[in-house]
This record gives sequence, C-alpha cells and structure tokens, in this order.
Amino acid sequence: MIHASGAAAKLQAAGGVRSLTFDAAQPLQLSNGENLAPLTLAFETYGALNVDRSNAVLVCHGLIGDQFVAGPNPVTGRPAWWPRIVGPGRPIDTNRFFVICSNVLGGSMGSTGPASPAADGQPFGLRFPQISIADIVRAQSMLVEALGIQNLFLVIGPEFGGMQALHWASAYPRRVFACGVVASAARQSAQNLAFAELARQAIMADADWRNGGYYAHGVRPARGAAIARAALSIASDAASEVRHRFETASAKERFSFAQSNEEARAGASHVERLDANSFLYLSRAMDGFDLAADFGGRLSNAFQDSQTRHGLFAFTSDWRYPPQETRSIARALIAAGAETASVEIPSAKGHEAYLADEPAFEAALTGFIDAAASARGLALQGGQ
Amino acid sequence: MIHASGAAAKLQAAGGVRSLTFDAAQPLQLSNGENLAPLTLAFETYGALNVDRSNAVLVCHGLIGDQFVAGPNPVTGRPAWWPRIVGPGRPIDTNRFFVICSNVLGGSMGSTGPASPAADGQPFGLRFPQISIADIVRAQSMLVEALGIQNLFLVIGPEFGGMQALHWASAYPRRVFACGVVASAARQSAQNLAFAELARQAIMADADWRNGGYYAHGVRPARGAAIARAALSIASDAASEVRHRFETASAKERFSFAQSNEEARAGASHVERLDANSFLYLSRAMDGFDLAADFGGRLSNAFQDSQTRHGLFAFTSDWRYPPQETRSIARALIAAGAETASVEIPSAKGHEAYLADEPAFEAALTGFIDAAASARGLALQGGQ
Repeated sequence: MIHASGAAAKLQAAGGVRSLTFDAAQPLQLSNGENLAPLTLAFETYGALNVDRSNAVLVCHGLIGDQFVAGPNPVTGRPAWWPRIVGPGRPIDTNRFFVICSNVLGGSMGSTGPASPAADGQPFGLRFPQISIADIVRAQSMLVEALGIQNLFLVIGPEFGGMQALHWASAYPRRVFACGVVASAARQSAQNLAFAELARQAIMADADWRNGGYYAHGVRPARGAAIARAALSIASDAASEVRHRFETASAKERFSFAQSNEEARAGASHVERLDANSFLYLSRAMDGFDLAADFGGRLSNAFQDSQTRHGLFAFTSDWRYPPQETRSIARALIAAGAETASVEIPSAKGHEAYLADEPAFEAALTGFIDAAASARGLALQGGQ
Repeated sequence: MIHASGAAAKLQAAGGVRSLTFDAAQPLQLSNGENLAPLTLAFETYGALNVDRSNAVLVCHGLIGDQFVAGPNPVTGRPAWWPRIVGPGRPIDTNRFFVICSNVLGGSMGSTGPASPAADGQPFGLRFPQISIADIVRAQSMLVEALGIQNLFLVIGPEFGGMQALHWASAYPRRVFACGVVASAARQSAQNLAFAELARQAIMADADWRNGGYYAHGVRPARGAAIARAALSIASDAASEVRHRFETASAKERFSFAQSNEEARAGASHVERLDANSFLYLSRAMDGFDLAADFGGRLSNAFQDSQTRHGLFAFTSDWRYPPQETRSIARALIAAGAETASVEIPSAKGHEAYLADEPAFEAALTGFIDAAASARGLALQGGQ
C-alpha cells in the first residue's frame, strides 16, 4: 500500500504492467458529474525521486501512446515511444529526473477504460462514461499524489499529451514548475475534428464493432481500426510526403496509397496497442478540449498569475498542429504575463517530427529544461 | 445518328437520361495507353445553339455531381445542382447560351463507368481502366464535337469540374474562349489526398464492397459510401461550422457529430447518385491531377500563348480549396501572359459556398461572363 496525502492506493504488477488502484473510497470525480470507482492507473517510472521530491517529471502520452515512454512495452513488444527525449543523457535526463508516465484514463494499457470490467464483471464498452482532458489530468493528479509527490518540476507531452500539459498548467499552476507543449494546440482545429470523426465512423461502421460490445464476441473492429490508424498516419505526414506517397503509389496501386505493408503491420499492432473503444473515447475527449472556452473565450484567462515556465515547440511541416496553433498559445501566455519560450523547429517530417531525429528540437528542449532546472535549484547533469 | 467532324455517334434516351454512344470505330484513347470502346456519355443541354455555334458553354460537374446542372435529376429526383448559376436570367443565362453538361467518364449517371457492362456483359467493376482528368476531358471533347461544336465560348466548373476546365484551357487553348475555375486547384493538396484516401479506404473496408464486385451480389457498400460522403461533407463545411456541429452534437451524441438524419438521407441518396466504384475511380483521377507536373513543374508552362480569358473564383472560408490555391493559379496564368480575373469572395459557407446564396460570387461571375461574351461578339441578354 502506498500512502500519501491521506490517499491509499493498491500497487499491482502483472505482465510487466504496474498500476495503482484507487478504491470506492477515492472515486474519480468526472466533469460530467459522475464518479468512477474503482480507478486503476497503469504507469511507469524512470530514474529516482530526490530527497526533496522536487525532480519529478510527468510525461503525458499522445492519442495512440502508452506509459512506456523510455523502455520497451512488454505487452506489445514495441520499443519505447520517445527514447530520443527521455532517457539517460537525453533532454529529459533520467539520471537527473524522476520521470512518471501513465496510461491515460480511458486507455487500454492497464488503466481503467472501456475494455475494463464494469460492476457486473463485463467490459464497460459504451457504458464507460464520457471523459474529458480535465478528467484525464485529475486522474494523473491522483496518481502523482499517491506516489507522494505534490509538485511536479515538469509536465510535458506531444499532441494529446501537450493538451494535458496545458490543462495541468492551467488547473494546478502552483504544482507545475515548468510546462512543455509539443506539436499541440489549445483546442482541436476543424481539420483535426474532421479526421477524428472519420476515424471514429470507420470503427463504428465495422460490423465487428458490435455497437462497442465486440469483447463478448471474441472479435474486434480490425478493419475500422486500421482505417482509423491510416487517418492519423496520413495526416501525420508532411504534405510533401503525402504527395510523394501518392505519386509513388499511383503507379503500382489502383486506389490505396496509404497502407504499405509496413503500415498494415503498424495498423495491426496499433489495434493491439489501443482498444478501438478507447480510441473513440480518447479522440472524443481530445476533440472536446478547448481551454479558452473554459475561460470565457479568452485563452490568456486560463493562465492568470501563472508562475509556470512554459516551453512551446512546433514543427514547420506539421499541418495537423501547425506553428500558428503554438503561436496563439504563446500570445495568450505572454498576454497573461507567463514566462514563455516558443520555438519553431524547421522540419520536413510533419506532425511526427517530435518522434524523429531533430537535433534543433532536442537542443531547444534541453536548453529550456536545464534553465528551468537551475531556476528550480536542481543539480545540473553529473551533479555539478 | 449525329454526324460531325467525321464522327458518328448514336443518340439514345432512356428514363430521362440522354446519351451518345461512340462505337468501336471511335475508341477513347486513355492516358494509360488503353482504348475504351464503346463509350457512352450521358449529357443534358439547356438553351439553344446559335447559328454560328459560338454560344456553347460546357459545365463540368464536381466529384459527386451529374449532368443535371439546371434541371431536376429524373433518376434520383434531386433538384438541379447549380440552379443559382445556370438558368434563365442566371449568370450562365440559358436564354443566351447553349449549355452542355455531361456525366463524366467513369461516372454512374449514364456514362461509361465501373458499373457499365464490359465485353462479357458483366459490370466492369475493378476491370474498368484507370482514368485521368485528361481522359475525362478528351471524352467531353468527343461529345462536344459530336454535337457539332468545335469551339466553346466557356468551360466552367467547381472543384473537380474546375480541374477539368483548367485542363481544357491548357489542352485546347484555341477551342476555349473563356475558362471559369470555381473553388478548385491546379492539383490536390495533401489534405485533400488524405481525405479522399480515407473515403476510398472506408468503401473498400466495407464487407459489401466485395472487392468491387458487389453488383453481382445485389448489395452495395452503403456503410463505406456513407463514411465517404461524411468525409466530403465535413471537409466541405467552414471550419467554424465543423466546430459548431461538434459543440452542439457533443452534448447529445456520444461520438459522432457528422451524421445527422438529414445527412444520413443525403448519404443514402449520394449512394444512389454515385456508384461506390465510380467514387474510387473519380477521386483517384482527381488526386492524380497535377497540371504543373505535366509541364516540367512550371504551371505557367501549361498556358503558354493562351488566348483564353480566365476567371478564378475562391471563397475565404473554403479550407479544402483555399484562396491560396486560386492565387497560385492566377500567378501562373499572369506569368504566362494570359488574361486573368481572380476573385476572392468573402464567405462563411466553406467549400460549398459555390452552391449557396453568395450575391458577390454571382455578381463577379456575371461580370466576367458578360465581358467575355461582348468580346466574343455575343448579343447581350435580351438581345440588345
């Protein structure tokens, strides 16, 4: 049992997946007014918490991601998803920081989600409550506190994770020393709403979806999920790459240029990696994110009196979360008087440039983190 | 039998659909080297051809469109698709001009397409050859000549039809006096490639698609086609409208905000209106359109020595074919010394603003057409 701030949570480990479970005495209060209990959150940690508990970093994963940010996923066998950024000697240095990454509420890598058993022992399916980014963050806050950590040195994430980081900085300004927002936005663009809607419709149109009840039938909406994957895959490429794939594919393929064998495999492991119903719930939560709307339509109101240092990172060829989105966040933060470093990285790699070899991104992120660490009085790398 | 320029074509009329059929003596030569025969092209005409045959207008329809531009479709019962623009006293005045609109090659409203019988009497399905915009235009040219018309006063169309108009002006500069390009582009953007690819994948993932052979099974990929429809429907809305629909829907609907009942009906009639395989072939032809690529990468080279007057029309809230696309066409035309009127219409109605009540669009289009008509020496409206 882990005890912290009066909360008791049961620690479990199965099949390489560690998790904390909060019982009915500590329900998660959802934005829609419902309570969710029991609540299990699967998580990984890397590095060691220092004595003052001041070096904790929370990494929030993207829509199709998991808690295995810096090490292989024992369930899918996939490698760490952000090894260039999190690890020994990396910008988020696990020799220096205590890194926590948890599978989001509604996910399917060990945290409570649509595939989890409801009170009747059967999977929730569509009985799972509607959730928001605020709910996902509130659950992360319960986990962090149960781990005995009150304040986070850094909360950071890409895309969906960047939205969570922004919400953390807005909802808990005193508990977040630094906030990193990577290839993300303060709300979904119409284009992203449209892509997500198509992905959801593709899943729901798959006969094997069974109105969300496919678990009981031993099937899964694999075709629909593969299209959903393709939707995100295509949209994550740089525009030039999409055209290139079309031009190279059109010669040999009749219609489809998105699903190379490699992607078909990726699609398949994506299906393993993210339950289709989880995709529906999480993408809907992402689509509903609109931080300005929560503050009377003025994004700067979300960051009044913020003491948090913000680092914003965008990639020039990212047309899903283009630099304009990041610039508008920067304007709002600066208007609110918040310390803000906004960086635009020249890249040809599209939205997923944040996963790629982009030395300028790593350099800027390292500079932002090191400056925040010395401001926080954390020892530099190597302990100097 | 209609005889013109040595060509013989058989005129037919069935169920309110008129068509011309070209026999094996006049095959359509396709870009991929194959010949297609027999070739049937369904078409409608409005107004009367003048004595010098100088007042002919070819209207090219959009991806999900048909030849019934100014009158109801007797097959689907749907009203004329462009009544604000084509009709008595409208910008394309049928009291003044002889308007031709044909169902495109590969379509399913009477022209030869994947649903048409192949040599063995069975529907082509995926045996239908791959086609390009150039092939679609070449077929239209055969139809126009068979109707005894050598030169067109105006070729105009929206979106997919605008690409056809651009190709007409580039391929047959001496036969096109004026060219109207509405809410279109000289090539598909990566975003449009992605949307079209998703729509195709949704159709092909539908179990009822039967690898394109659904005709023989008395089924059709209705679910996939409905998603394809939704893809285009969402993407055709203004960004603000997409968000509005999300925000209003999210309260009452769990996941899907695109398919209102009205749209479900529209989706259904879309299925009747456009065969799913036709969608695959036509969208692929659209995606392959890249006029600059056909001319060494310089779009202006596509219009060298052009005598054609070009009218370009874009709508500010159209994020599928945004004004930048039209501006780049204007730059290329002006660089080529071609007469060019480029108009940006302020509108909140998104891509489908060209179908809506947009007085500024109608005024600009009327001015462009009237000026071209007087330059061509055509009597003004009312015969003054």
